[in-house]
Amino acid sequence: MFNKICIVGLGLIGSSIARAVKRTHPAVQITGYDASEDVRNRARAIALMPEIPNTIDAALHDADLVILCVPVGAMGAAARDAVPHMKAGAVLSDTGSVKSEVIAAIRPHLRADITFIPAHPIAGTEHSGPEAGFADLFVGRWCILTPLDGTPDAPLTALRELWRGFGSKMEDMPPARHDRTLAITSHLPHLIAYTIVGTATELENDIQSEVIKFSAGGFRDFTRIAASDPTMWRDIFMNNQEAVLEILQRFSEDLSGLQKAIRQGKGDVLFDFFTKTRNVRRAVIEAKQA
Amino acid sequence: MFNKICIVGLGLIGSSIARAVKRTHPAVQITGYDASEDVRNRARAIALMPEIPNTIDAALHDADLVILCVPVGAMGAAARDAVPHMKAGAVLSDTGSVKSEVIAAIRPHLRADITFIPAHPIAGTEHSGPEAGFADLFVGRWCILTPLDGTPDAPLTALRELWRGFGSKMEDMPPARHDRTLAITSHLPHLIAYTIVGTATELENDIQSEVIKFSAGGFRDFTRIAASDPTMWRDIFMNNQEAVLEILQRFSEDLSGLQKAIRQGKGDVLFDFFTKTRNVRRAVIEAKQA
Repeated sequence: MFNKICIVGLGLIGSSIARAVKRTHPAVQITGYDASEDVRNRARAIALMPEIPNTIDAALHDADLVILCVPVGAMGAAARDAVPHMKAGAVLSDTGSVKSEVIAAIRPHLRADITFIPAHPIAGTEHSGPEAGFADLFVGRWCILTPLDGTPDAPLTALRELWRGFGSKMEDMPPARHDRTLAITSHLPHLIAYTIVGTATELENDIQSEVIKFSAGGFRDFTRIAASDPTMWRDIFMNNQEAVLEILQRFSEDLSGLQKAIRQGKGDVLFDFFTKTRNVRRAVIEAKQA
Repeated sequence: MFNKICIVGLGLIGSSIARAVKRTHPAVQITGYDASEDVRNRARAIALMPEIPNTIDAALHDADLVILCVPVGAMGAAARDAVPHMKAGAVLSDTGSVKSEVIAAIRPHLRADITFIPAHPIAGTEHSGPEAGFADLFVGRWCILTPLDGTPDAPLTALRELWRGFGSKMEDMPPARHDRTLAITSHLPHLIAYTIVGTATELENDIQSEVIKFSAGGFRDFTRIAASDPTMWRDIFMNNQEAVLEILQRFSEDLSGLQKAIRQGKGDVLFDFFTKTRNVRRAVIEAKQA
């Protein structure tokens, strides 16, 4: 169904999609655009795709599918710039980690002859930019669609097949539910990791160098998570405020409880808490997500 | 210098030391003991070492080095049971993740003709028990010694050489400094991971199963950390209270700051915070701890 695909935003996700398309659908024509001239030049330097024009309208000319792979906070502007130039009957999709606010930002720019299908591939690394992408990024990972009411079947099926071709497992979900689930599985973990690494940066210099030296005890895993793209994560927290603040509230209460148990020397409280978390690991392994 | 080594506590660390000794010093005689009959039987079933007697005095008879690899809270009792049966001139060491309290617990049981050298190999996995150990666990990892005043050079050098043979990098540190550093690099990260996974276990059932399904967004890394041995971690928090509570206080303040920035929509505060944490990752990679 898609003979020409245009990718807007050539960072980790966009450049990985480009590579996955090239590998799974070598006959499909693929173009790209990025608002940053530097990123466009870097993508050209690695020959990410044959055509990376300097304007978005040239990039998406005649495309059957346009995928917005920009930070969540830039989705509205990207849609505003892209949609007027899209071919009638084309499909617009995105890869934003937040869905309700992204849909709200894109909706005012939509046209009746364009089908918009919000999507979120749950995949990524701590690396950013066009050089960081790779075709295997989506293999075995979930891609969640949050279709709007009345979305026709044909483009939905086509988009699902495209992602399945990349190796993704597909799931449909209402936007609000997606945002709440991701607040727990991804947004809070990132916020916590950023915090703990940030806390360490404010220690005295001598302790700080020892923290880095002896980071293998757990800290280093947090430094990896806290190395993710700052713009992407700022936008996620700005656009999934409500769900993040709600789960953060619960987390803070639980942490206060453990803090109190440590202060009062209540080892049994800690032991019980630490025992129930083991079962979650088992469930993650059984779900083949480990 | 060590012709016979006795390992007390045959969990992940103790059984890994046994395997590392067998590989690096096949001529050294090695015996083991565990207070749990079940663990002794499991260690015998995998032929961890030729001799695993049913009593600690039989196990450490004639040993030149006794290494206590029990949870931090059991160190005092292990020393009380072991030291009276130790050979004059032998070396006692341990592998506890906390040093000040472990030294305080062991000190009353020491003898003038025994040299005690506190040690902490910063290595581990989320798996527990004699089956979980492996000879490579210590390769490229730090092992910190926190020697007491007046410790003679010969046993110190011998212990260092033993650990270097396992592949460890060695460092000496005062106990209090060790405890403060580890509170940041290991104890706080584990507490946070336990908390976030625990928070998820209290969500409604339908959201909980989705959290497990979509855990690849960051949460799964926390479930791995939060699958570590509950007894070991209870003991660590009970015995490194002060340092853990101090760094937890700083962490909570930083988290409150980010929470406020999210609530007030201050994206620039988040962006600045998320940018400085990237440099820490770079330092961890440069220190070859990634």
